[in-house]
Amino acid sequence: MAPHDPLPGPRLGEPYLLTPGPLTTAYEVKQAMLRDWGSWDDDFRALTAEMRTRLVGLLGAGHEAYDCVPMQGSGSFAVEAMLGSFIPRDGKALVLANGAYGLRAAETLRYLGRDHVVLDKGDYLPPRGAEVAQILAGDPAITHVVAVHCETSSGILNPIEEISDAVAAAGRVLLIDSMSAFGAVPLEPARLQFDAMVSSANKCIEGVPGFGFVLAKKTALAAARGNSASLSLDVHAQWAHMEKTGQWRFTPPTHVVAAFVEALRAHAEEGGVAGRGARYVRNRDVLVQGMRDLGFETLLADRWLSPIIITFFCPADPAFDFPTFYDAMKARGFVLYPGKLTVVDSFRIGCIGQLDEHVMRRVVAAAGEVLAEMGVTSAAPPQAALDERSKLAS
Amino acid sequence: MAPHDPLPGPRLGEPYLLTPGPLTTAYEVKQAMLRDWGSWDDDFRALTAEMRTRLVGLLGAGHEAYDCVPMQGSGSFAVEAMLGSFIPRDGKALVLANGAYGLRAAETLRYLGRDHVVLDKGDYLPPRGAEVAQILAGDPAITHVVAVHCETSSGILNPIEEISDAVAAAGRVLLIDSMSAFGAVPLEPARLQFDAMVSSANKCIEGVPGFGFVLAKKTALAAARGNSASLSLDVHAQWAHMEKTGQWRFTPPTHVVAAFVEALRAHAEEGGVAGRGARYVRNRDVLVQGMRDLGFETLLADRWLSPIIITFFCPADPAFDFPTFYDAMKARGFVLYPGKLTVVDSFRIGCIGQLDEHVMRRVVAAAGEVLAEMGVTSAAPPQAALDERSKLAS
Ligand SMILES: Cc1ncc(COP(=O)(O)O)c(C=O)c1O
Ligand SMILES: Cc1ncc(COP(=O)(O)O)c(C=O)c1O
Repeated sequence: MAPHDPLPGPRLGEPYLLTPGPLTTAYEVKQAMLRDWGSWDDDFRALTAEMRTRLVGLLGAGHEAYDCVPMQGSGSFAVEAMLGSFIPRDGKALVLANGAYGLRAAETLRYLGRDHVVLDKGDYLPPRGAEVAQILAGDPAITHVVAVHCETSSGILNPIEEISDAVAAAGRVLLIDSMSAFGAVPLEPARLQFDAMVSSANKCIEGVPGFGFVLAKKTALAAARGNSASLSLDVHAQWAHMEKTGQWRFTPPTHVVAAFVEALRAHAEEGGVAGRGARYVRNRDVLVQGMRDLGFETLLADRWLSPIIITFFCPADPAFDFPTFYDAMKARGFVLYPGKLTVVDSFRIGCIGQLDEHVMRRVVAAAGEVLAEMGVTSAAPPQAALDERSKLAS
Repeated sequence: MAPHDPLPGPRLGEPYLLTPGPLTTAYEVKQAMLRDWGSWDDDFRALTAEMRTRLVGLLGAGHEAYDCVPMQGSGSFAVEAMLGSFIPRDGKALVLANGAYGLRAAETLRYLGRDHVVLDKGDYLPPRGAEVAQILAGDPAITHVVAVHCETSSGILNPIEEISDAVAAAGRVLLIDSMSAFGAVPLEPARLQFDAMVSSANKCIEGVPGFGFVLAKKTALAAARGNSASLSLDVHAQWAHMEKTGQWRFTPPTHVVAAFVEALRAHAEEGGVAGRGARYVRNRDVLVQGMRDLGFETLLADRWLSPIIITFFCPADPAFDFPTFYDAMKARGFVLYPGKLTVVDSFRIGCIGQLDEHVMRRVVAAAGEVLAEMGVTSAAPPQAALDERSKLAS
C-alpha cells in the first residue's frame, strides 16, 4: 500500500473498477468466499439473520416498521420483484424516468402487464415534486409512484424527498429503486415515506454481485400476498418463508452472501451510511475538482452531482478519442465506464467501491498524462454539450 | 490429504457437504473468486463465451443445434425462465411429478397462469413412458411435457429416455429439469429429443451457487420471443442480447461465473460427463454397499438409484434419533441432508461434489460408529417403510 492509502484496494495487479457495480471490493470481502456453506445449516441461517438485521438498521430512524427480504438474481430481478409484488394487479403506476433505469422499470411493468404511465424527462433532467403532484392530481387511478434514487446512467441524485412529499400529500404509495445509492446516501423513513425500496449486494455496501434485497414496510409485505405472477420473484412468499424458517426459499448464493455480510461489517466500522457517504463525497469532490482543473466539464451542475458516479463530456478537441483514452487509463490501472447519453459524447467515472481520495488524485493525474500523450490541448466539451446542459433547471 | 485421497476436499476444518448443492467445491474453484471483474470488459466476455461453449459441448453428439443461456438467480429461477419462455401463453403443459421439484414446476405454471395438468406419482414412483403416451393421446391440447431428470427429493433417476420417446412419438415438446443430474448423467440430443433443459452452477459441475443455465435448441430460442411475462426471466431476450454483445443483459454474478468456469475446466480434465459420472457412481456404490452392510435400507431398488443422492430409511430401533445422528455425523465432518418423504422417516446422503470413494468409506465408518454410540443394535427400517417400498414397480 502507498503510504497515504488507508484502503487495501485491489490486489494481483488488478485495475481499479471506477464503475457503479460490479466494483472494486476489499480482499477480505472476497476471502469470505473461500469456504462452502450448507444453506439449511444453522451457521448460514445466522449469517442471513445478521444480514437482514444490519440492512434494516441502515434505514436509521424509523426502521422498526421495515423488514428485509433478500432476492436472488441481479438488481433488475429485485426491481421486478418489488414492482410485481407491491403493485396489485389492478393498480396503476407512475414511473419517473430520467435515464436507462427508470425506463427499465417501465419496461418491466409492460412485461408484467401492470397499468402504468411514464413521466420521461429524457437523459438527465430531474423529475420535480411539483410536476409529480400535478400528474397525481390529474389521474386518481394512479396508486403507486416508482422513483429512481440515483439514476446511475447520468449519475444524477434525484430529489427523492421532494418526490416523496408530493406522493405522500396525494395519498399514493412510493416505491424506490435505490440500487446505486443505498448505503451511502441516507434514505430514512423518518424523513421520507415509502413502502419499499431495492438495492443490491454490489453497490455502496461493496459486496460482490449475486443478489438484491428489498426493504419494505412489514404491513406492505403482509399485504403483498397473492400479487406476484412469478413464483421466483414473489417477495411476500420469500419473506413469509424466511420469517418461518430463517432460510431462503430457494438455494441462496451462499458465498456471495458470506462476502456481503463481511462487507456490511466493514460498512459499520466505517461509520455506516454517514461514514461511507462521506468517503464517496470526498472521492467525488477530489475527482470533479481535478477533472475541472484539467478542463473537463461535468454534465450536471453541482447541486445534482451524486457521490456515486459522475458524467463528464468528451473533449471537443479532435485529438481526443474515447477508446484510446479508455485503453490508456486501463493500462494505468483505472477502468472507466462509457457514457449513456443519447445526445452528446460522454464518459463516466464511479466514486464507489474500495477507492478513496488518494486513488482519485491518481485517477486525475493519469487522465492528465493520457490527454498529454494523446496531444489533446483542451479538454473543453463541444458547444452542443454546453447548450444541452443549459437545459438543466438549477 | 490422506494418502489415498486424490481430491483436495474442503479446508479450514470444514465438514463435507453430503448434499445436492450447495456442495463441497474444490479450493481452486473458490480461489477463482479472489478478483473483481468488470462485467462489460473483454476479459469477462471471454469467460462468458468459454462457459457457454463448454456447457453446450457437454450435450455430446447433436449439440450443434443447441445454445446456452445463463440466467441469474437460483435453479428455480432458471426453471421458471424455461417454462415461461418456451411454453407459449396459449400452450398447455403436462407436468410429470414424483417429488418436490416436479410439484414446484407445477406451482410455477400456476403462478404464470399457464394451463397445465399434473401426473402426480407421489413421493418417488417413476412416471413411465406408457402412461405419458396415454395421457398425451387423450389430451391433444397438451403442447409441452415437463420432466424432472433426477428428482432430488428421493434421488430417483427418472426414465427420461422412455419419457422422451413417448413425447416425441406424440409430436409434443419436452422440457427437462436436469438440475441435479446434468454434467454427471448423459443427456444427449443424439439419444433424446428435447427443446430445452436447465441446470445450475452448484450441482454436478461443482461450482458455487448463484446462477442457472438453459440449454435449448436455437430454433426454440428464436421462437420464444414474446412468450415471457417477466423481463428478468426472459430467456429469449437474454439470449438475443448475449448473441449481439457477448454480455449478460443485467449484472452477472461475476465471481460465481469465474468460479464456475474453473469448475468446468476441472470437469473436462476429469473426463467430462463420463469421468464425472463414473466418480459419482463409485461414490454411490461404495456408500450403498457400506450402508447396507450396516443394516440400512435404501428407499429405491437398485435400478432407480441415481449417482446423485440416496434416500435411506431411518432405523426402526427406538435408540435411533435423526437429530442426534445428524449432529454426531456433523461432528465427524459429514453434513447429511434430512429426508423429504411424506410417509416414512428417512434421510439423504449426497454423492456429488468434491467427494470420492475414500471419503464415502469414511462416511460409512462414521455412520457405524455413531450407531454404536447411540446404542442402535439394528439399522433395519420399520415394516411400514418396506411395505411402502414394495409399491415401487421394478
Ligand atoms: C439505479 C439502478 N437500477 C437498476 C440497476 C440494475 O441492476 P443490475 O444490473 O444488477 O440488474 C442498476 C445497475 O447499475 C442501477 O444502477
Ligand atoms: C431437480 C431440481 N430442480 C430444481 C431445484 C431448485 O434449485 P434451487 O434450489 O437452486 O432453486 C433443485 C434443487 O436442488 C433440484 O434438485
